[in-house]
Amino acid sequence: MTQNTQVKLVKRPVGEPKASDFEISTAPMPEPAEGEVLIEVNYLSLDPAMRGWMNEGKSYVPPVQLGEVMRALGAGKIIASKNPKFQAGDYVTGTTGVQRYALSDGKDLTKVDPALAPLPTYLNILGMTGMTAYFGLLDVGQPKEGETVVISGAAGAVGSTAGQIAKIKGCKVVGIAGGREKCDFLIKELGFDDAVDYKNENVYQGLKRACPEGIDVFFDNVGGDILDAALARLRMHARVVICGAISQYNATEKPQGPRNYMSLLVNRARMQGMVVFDWMDQYANAAREMAGWMQQGKLKHKEHIVEGLEDFPERLLMLFRGENLGKLVLKVADEQ
Amino acid sequence: MTQNTQVKLVKRPVGEPKASDFEISTAPMPEPAEGEVLIEVNYLSLDPAMRGWMNEGKSYVPPVQLGEVMRALGAGKIIASKNPKFQAGDYVTGTTGVQRYALSDGKDLTKVDPALAPLPTYLNILGMTGMTAYFGLLDVGQPKEGETVVISGAAGAVGSTAGQIAKIKGCKVVGIAGGREKCDFLIKELGFDDAVDYKNENVYQGLKRACPEGIDVFFDNVGGDILDAALARLRMHARVVICGAISQYNATEKPQGPRNYMSLLVNRARMQGMVVFDWMDQYANAAREMAGWMQQGKLKHKEHIVEGLEDFPERLLMLFRGENLGKLVLKVADEQ
Repeated sequence: MTQNTQVKLVKRPVGEPKASDFEISTAPMPEPAEGEVLIEVNYLSLDPAMRGWMNEGKSYVPPVQLGEVMRALGAGKIIASKNPKFQAGDYVTGTTGVQRYALSDGKDLTKVDPALAPLPTYLNILGMTGMTAYFGLLDVGQPKEGETVVISGAAGAVGSTAGQIAKIKGCKVVGIAGGREKCDFLIKELGFDDAVDYKNENVYQGLKRACPEGIDVFFDNVGGDILDAALARLRMHARVVICGAISQYNATEKPQGPRNYMSLLVNRARMQGMVVFDWMDQYANAAREMAGWMQQGKLKHKEHIVEGLEDFPERLLMLFRGENLGKLVLKVADEQ
Repeated sequence: MTQNTQVKLVKRPVGEPKASDFEISTAPMPEPAEGEVLIEVNYLSLDPAMRGWMNEGKSYVPPVQLGEVMRALGAGKIIASKNPKFQAGDYVTGTTGVQRYALSDGKDLTKVDPALAPLPTYLNILGMTGMTAYFGLLDVGQPKEGETVVISGAAGAVGSTAGQIAKIKGCKVVGIAGGREKCDFLIKELGFDDAVDYKNENVYQGLKRACPEGIDVFFDNVGGDILDAALARLRMHARVVICGAISQYNATEKPQGPRNYMSLLVNRARMQGMVVFDWMDQYANAAREMAGWMQQGKLKHKEHIVEGLEDFPERLLMLFRGENLGKLVLKVADEQ
């Protein structure tokens, strides 16, 4: 009998999630009930937002309950279906959870075609990550041609995509990332105009150097001191997109607020938060436009693939330690 | 020979401004050069923003230079004119500075009619204060009928006006103010639906009590813990208007940032700063609409008038100590 391996959240992490906050257990592979499908999970998306899902309390999605399989977006193949919309052999993405086999009622599944693009791409640029970059930059940031766009967490999955879209829209684009390798990647591989290396440079001074006239759109994935440095360099009528705050997610104290927020007043600027789900009805159009840019060679993507379902807690920490370049994807099992 | 009394900024205040940061001096009453007018100042507007003007560094207006007459908006009578647009006897408002007699090239002066409304009213609801409330609430906050609007510094000049405009627009309005007298004033005199007394109540709990369904528009004049409490109670798609941050203006450390700013993400909310000058070309229309509401008895105003040019530094501190109810105006001299 085939066994399912599951990673369950058993403790609310304090600070960085530890292996002991999770329990790895096995159970018989489940069978789909009427209306359900069974998915063999091949890849899991590792996202900074997952840290927030582990906390108790109200947020944009309910917290993962203790004892539940950890929530995750995944990509895989349907191996049994009692849902007329899907059949065995279909490839899908959706909320599978951190496990080898997942049941789903199909409601949040999207069919994908691994012949058009490798499966992990659907967790990255053609999935939620790409949608976050697209709508966060374009709808919330509203960059205009010739404006200066600065992206934090720029070598990460969302940041690297948002920066390239800003280039496509005719903006000057500066990325903030940690280390020379990442900064070189942004400039040489992705066509960013400049980069600020927060590990080797004062970010405020770096932004002054790279954007002497200030920032029109700041797309923030990081928060903390980096957000403050960017706020201090805003231009009039700037837009700050709050997409994430990875520097704060493991804080055990109350997170640090942006001390320079009064720059919003001085510069008549706005700071706006976003959650990608709000654009769900526009995903298809956006994905089509992104695919077009990819075909024209204007939009690149990079997946950083690591292996091992059992190592989920440790792999996830790579995000908070800045050890990923591009989209961090956990490979669960080879596609059959 | 008539003497002019002037209050000059001679030191950059650290923390609360002190009398010793200013110098009171006399000089001969000046004479207007070609194109200039001489104004006898009757009233000065005391505003929290003045504290910012005393600091060095870039802001939305240049800082007052050391040795200069302290900047202030004033109302008074033209007593000599070499500017064809004005004649002796005209009443005006404009940037007069903290002094008995002011020269002006006329560019920032507005003629007002003391027969239609008392002079101090033109520094309050019919002046910059009223405009700030009007455009901050309506253009930046964009309240819709039936929404819940919360105002901090609600018993102050801008706050009390913004709250009444929100009532006129059909909103539920809750004010945050210090002390029972101010809260009663908001509810009984100005028609606010409820008030939170930050001196005698936990603000977060008070907002939970007064707006159990959360806040759609938060109009902030205060910053600090009060902004944080409001952020924690935002509804989806809320708008936060950053009009001021009086709790932070005398801070000697870097001001406290809004620790709960990630509520902007969770609630897809936005926080936007404003400076009233941006609506200068629309002042006249707004003032007309406000005057209409005043005639209909829907919009009340209250000036808190104190006396004595020489006591300017001490009078200004009343704002930071929450000792004013309504618009704080310094009477310089009786109208002749």
